Amino acid sequence: MYRYSENKLDVFQERYKDRARLLIKCPDKQGIVAAVSTFLHEQGANIVASNQYTVDPEGGQFFMRLEFEIKGLSEQVGQLKEKFQIVAEHMDMEWRIAMMSELKNVAIFVSKEPHCLLELLWEWQSGDLLANIKVVISNHETAREMVEAVGIPFYHIPVTKEQKKEAEEKQNQILKKYDIELIILARYMQILSPHFVEKYESKIINIHHSFLPAFIGAKPYERAYDRGVKMIGATSHYVTNDLDEGPIIEQDIDRVNHEQDAADLKKIGQSIERRVLARAVKWHLEDRILVHGNKTIIFE
Amino acid sequence: MYRYSENKLDVFQERYKDRARLLIKCPDKQGIVAAVSTFLHEQGANIVASNQYTVDPEGGQFFMRLEFEIKGLSEQVGQLKEKFQIVAEHMDMEWRIAMMSELKNVAIFVSKEPHCLLELLWEWQSGDLLANIKVVISNHETAREMVEAVGIPFYHIPVTKEQKKEAEEKQNQILKKYDIELIILARYMQILSPHFVEKYESKIINIHHSFLPAFIGAKPYERAYDRGVKMIGATSHYVTNDLDEGPIIEQDIDRVNHEQDAADLKKIGQSIERRVLARAVKWHLEDRILVHGNKTIIFE
Amino acid sequence: MYRYSENKLDVFQERYKDRARLLIKCPDKQGIVAAVSTFLHEQGANIVASNQYTVDPEGGQFFMRLEFEIKGLSEQVGQLKEKFQIVAEHMDMEWRIAMMSELKNVAIFVSKEPHCLLELLWEWQSGDLLANIKVVISNHETAREMVEAVGIPFYHIPVTKEQKKEAEEKQNQILKKYDIELIILARYMQILSPHFVEKYESKIINIHHSFLPAFIGAKPYERAYDRGVKMIGATSHYVTNDLDEGPIIEQDIDRVNHEQDAADLKKIGQSIERRVLARAVKWHLEDRILVHGNKTIIFE
Amino acid sequence: MYRYSENKLDVFQERYKDRARLLIKCPDKQGIVAAVSTFLHEQGANIVASNQYTVDPEGGQFFMRLEFEIKGLSEQVGQLKEKFQIVAEHMDMEWRIAMMSELKNVAIFVSKEPHCLLELLWEWQSGDLLANIKVVISNHETAREMVEAVGIPFYHIPVTKEQKKEAEEKQNQILKKYDIELIILARYMQILSPHFVEKYESKIINIHHSFLPAFIGAKPYERAYDRGVKMIGATSHYVTNDLDEGPIIEQDIDRVNHEQDAADLKKIGQSIERRVLARAVKWHLEDRILVHGNKTIIFE
Repeated sequence: MYRYSENKLDVFQERYKDRARLLIKCPDKQGIVAAVSTFLHEQGANIVASNQYTVDPEGGQFFMRLEFEIKGLSEQVGQLKEKFQIVAEHMDMEWRIAMMSELKNVAIFVSKEPHCLLELLWEWQSGDLLANIKVVISNHETAREMVEAVGIPFYHIPVTKEQKKEAEEKQNQILKKYDIELIILARYMQILSPHFVEKYESKIINIHHSFLPAFIGAKPYERAYDRGVKMIGATSHYVTNDLDEGPIIEQDIDRVNHEQDAADLKKIGQSIERRVLARAVKWHLEDRILVHGNKTIIFE
Repeated sequence: MYRYSENKLDVFQERYKDRARLLIKCPDKQGIVAAVSTFLHEQGANIVASNQYTVDPEGGQFFMRLEFEIKGLSEQVGQLKEKFQIVAEHMDMEWRIAMMSELKNVAIFVSKEPHCLLELLWEWQSGDLLANIKVVISNHETAREMVEAVGIPFYHIPVTKEQKKEAEEKQNQILKKYDIELIILARYMQILSPHFVEKYESKIINIHHSFLPAFIGAKPYERAYDRGVKMIGATSHYVTNDLDEGPIIEQDIDRVNHEQDAADLKKIGQSIERRVLARAVKWHLEDRILVHGNKTIIFE
Repeated sequence: MYRYSENKLDVFQERYKDRARLLIKCPDKQGIVAAVSTFLHEQGANIVASNQYTVDPEGGQFFMRLEFEIKGLSEQVGQLKEKFQIVAEHMDMEWRIAMMSELKNVAIFVSKEPHCLLELLWEWQSGDLLANIKVVISNHETAREMVEAVGIPFYHIPVTKEQKKEAEEKQNQILKKYDIELIILARYMQILSPHFVEKYESKIINIHHSFLPAFIGAKPYERAYDRGVKMIGATSHYVTNDLDEGPIIEQDIDRVNHEQDAADLKKIGQSIERRVLARAVKWHLEDRILVHGNKTIIFE
Repeated sequence: MYRYSENKLDVFQERYKDRARLLIKCPDKQGIVAAVSTFLHEQGANIVASNQYTVDPEGGQFFMRLEFEIKGLSEQVGQLKEKFQIVAEHMDMEWRIAMMSELKNVAIFVSKEPHCLLELLWEWQSGDLLANIKVVISNHETAREMVEAVGIPFYHIPVTKEQKKEAEEKQNQILKKYDIELIILARYMQILSPHFVEKYESKIINIHHSFLPAFIGAKPYERAYDRGVKMIGATSHYVTNDLDEGPIIEQDIDRVNHEQDAADLKKIGQSIERRVLARAVKWHLEDRILVHGNKTIIFE
């Protein structure tokens, strides 16, 4: 694959080869921070950054993100995980440890409008999107050329009402083949089946072209124009089986005025969509997002 | 009445004593700009600023705002209006000419939360809100002290379901008495009757505490919190008989994060409400807003 | 003193009577988080929130803010501090523990323009600025009425070149008398002497009416107008003896256009100044700011 | 040349084939608007949009932008210009009439960093940048591949101190050959000679990677980081012979925090640069910018 900045990536991976992120979610009780930080200290870790947040302190939910460094960690991370499992069980934790140098495998789904896909490809080419973009899947041929031009495999899987199931089976095979950990819907205009969505809980990021919950559903720019709003926006969120109702990750807006018609709004909106999706993806890749019910906790 | 800056107002009124604003709305056809500007030129006017906007050029609607100056205008504005009426009839215009030195008479309606009222009083005291705030009307006593402290009459008119009609009659008498041209609902938590609203078309400005059309209706901050949005907003609009559906004048937003609860959102939101309402009122007072169906054209 | 919401304050103080904030700054080394969190755990604390940041991991500087709760803390915080001192010495820490229910004593300095002072008084009256505003000091009489109206002592201390030293002595006596912990320069147009500034290191917050480092010094709005910028801003910062060069706490901006003259820019700017100063003061009062050289670390 | 949306361009050119823009700058006096609009009316024009602005009404400067439509204009625009010249001379006007369907010829200069160039190419490919990008000139080979991939000629003209004059001569020949009307410096890191700049007055747009006038000159992100600012920005401006001092067209900013180092700031800044430059170029291409001394008047 062709990247302008292989070098940037090498520098990153070398610099952080012994650094990992630990994410924790568990019922709140006294002593969690002490237990975790003491454990890490005993393993020889230097805690480089940490953020903690507790929802409703009394009988509530505890969330934490740590970045830490241990000399030679890359060779012993398996052992570390085994040891931490004992602490974690004791505290009833959901957790994961992710090496910073191991990039996540990503698939991008797209339909006809290429602006969000292009933004991601570009960030990726310039070495700023730290992920392995393994594959692009589309229900149209439109994006093939620009995807293959940068050396990423492109699969055209048409989706019709009748053969939606078969299409999702094909998609699934590809996702399995490439060991995909994150699916980005970069303006993919098909609704995924409940079964598909459940399999990738908190692992599918969508970009919706409105400032949710305003203008849920189709044609948001036309409806924004009809309503005469003075600002339009975009929203990135994890996909759940309630359409446009999943946990919001990021939103942004821009001003519009009476001179701008629905087409102008769409154009301005595309620029917002690009940056909102790119930010959400970046935070996910850096393990900065924890999902709590229908909300996200973002340790920026 | 006590104002910090009577002086600022005097300077303004002296400086612009011969300046007026002309607002026009009519069916689009060729020659409108020529007719209007030729008329003004013949009257000895210097056109200082002008903005024009046409919705749908073919068979559409024409909107224009001009600021002009004529030596000695204050003494002859009546004649000017009479003469212009001939041009206007010919072109089928809705129009008005407003002397810049003649401030509009304003009434503010408020319930218990004083932040928007205070913002307006403060702008008014400092000489930056160029209006005659003639009266404040409230369904509670809460704001009496702060209103009377700056020398503005305060009327407490309780509103209950049973005597809503009587209450509106009392309000109407006061509005008539003070010759009110603009009503500002500065967090007034009562719904006005259709009859009342019709009488003041495009003359009642409300501030809604959400980024409309998201969170129409009650308790927007609680609902924004429950939805987990990453930005909250406020919207000022003209009041029509469709609740929260009137023409939007101005909107703004601020970022929020997962650490902030509904009370925090409310606090941040109040700061947005203050500035959004203040801007909308300012544009109305400067005759910068034209209403077209359910939208506003704002000649900023 | 008259506050609209004594009640809000009572609720806050009751709710958080056993909660405190711990701020730490020390040379980075392994085991700090473990040591601190283990100590707190042994004292029966529940850590409600924590943020950590390390500047330059290798041989760098460690910064941490924790919020914690211990049953009955208000009666034993003295002992807690004594015990923590042992941990702190071992780790070479600068630190402080602040009870959330103990409001900081604040003095506001102002000259003639009252907008920032008014914003703070208003926040304070509505129960949203959690501080004891003990006194307002001014080199003019302008603000006396609005300050005394809310029951806060006002001192007029004229400052001239010749008697600047005497003026600062008077100011110092007042600050001592009221046991002032934070000085807010709410558009105070006098330069404080180096001696005065040193005594209140990281305890004087100023609002500068430009987006620093653009337009350092006098008349920023005039200069912004002359330069034809498309945005103007304001900056709040801790005062040091380098004029307008102290650690920046917060900045914000608004758009302007060619129609707006220097007076318009000033008016728009005042609205920015108000919110930028209010945010900076709030963060300081909530112990969210740590100073590192000429920068601030803000645990939002 | 390969464009995704030839079709979009065709639709645009067909739709606006009889529409033109008239830009005027002259000493202010009574009757200008009347004269211009009467002239256009006599030619059978429908004025679709107009904006006017007067700097300092007394003895000041008058600026105007009109969009108008005349049936069959494309065939008779030459005659129209001849006739208007008589009006223009009478009023001492600088003016130009530009057909909306005639795209301007543009050259892009770039050095090594491709982000701004890519943004422009992308907008152009998608049919949203309405210009003829005739040529890209660079002092490096870096961008050749991406430029030639979309079918635009690429010229590598190295620039050293010794042969700067020769380099500019080569550049000039190319600019002449392609009849270039606008030069965009999309992160071109060479200073142009005074002679070159004078030849293209108000026709060279640069993007500076800071919120001017903060951080004039080299390495703005490093200096922003060192100063600890809480927002960074970018500025697009016309190039004059005072470095970074030309008339500002557009600025924008984004928030940054203490966790972000100079490299992060640069990354965030590049995203700002892209949108600020794209907006400035769009306004120039739509004839929305008039230059007045060292400022721009933008009829948005």
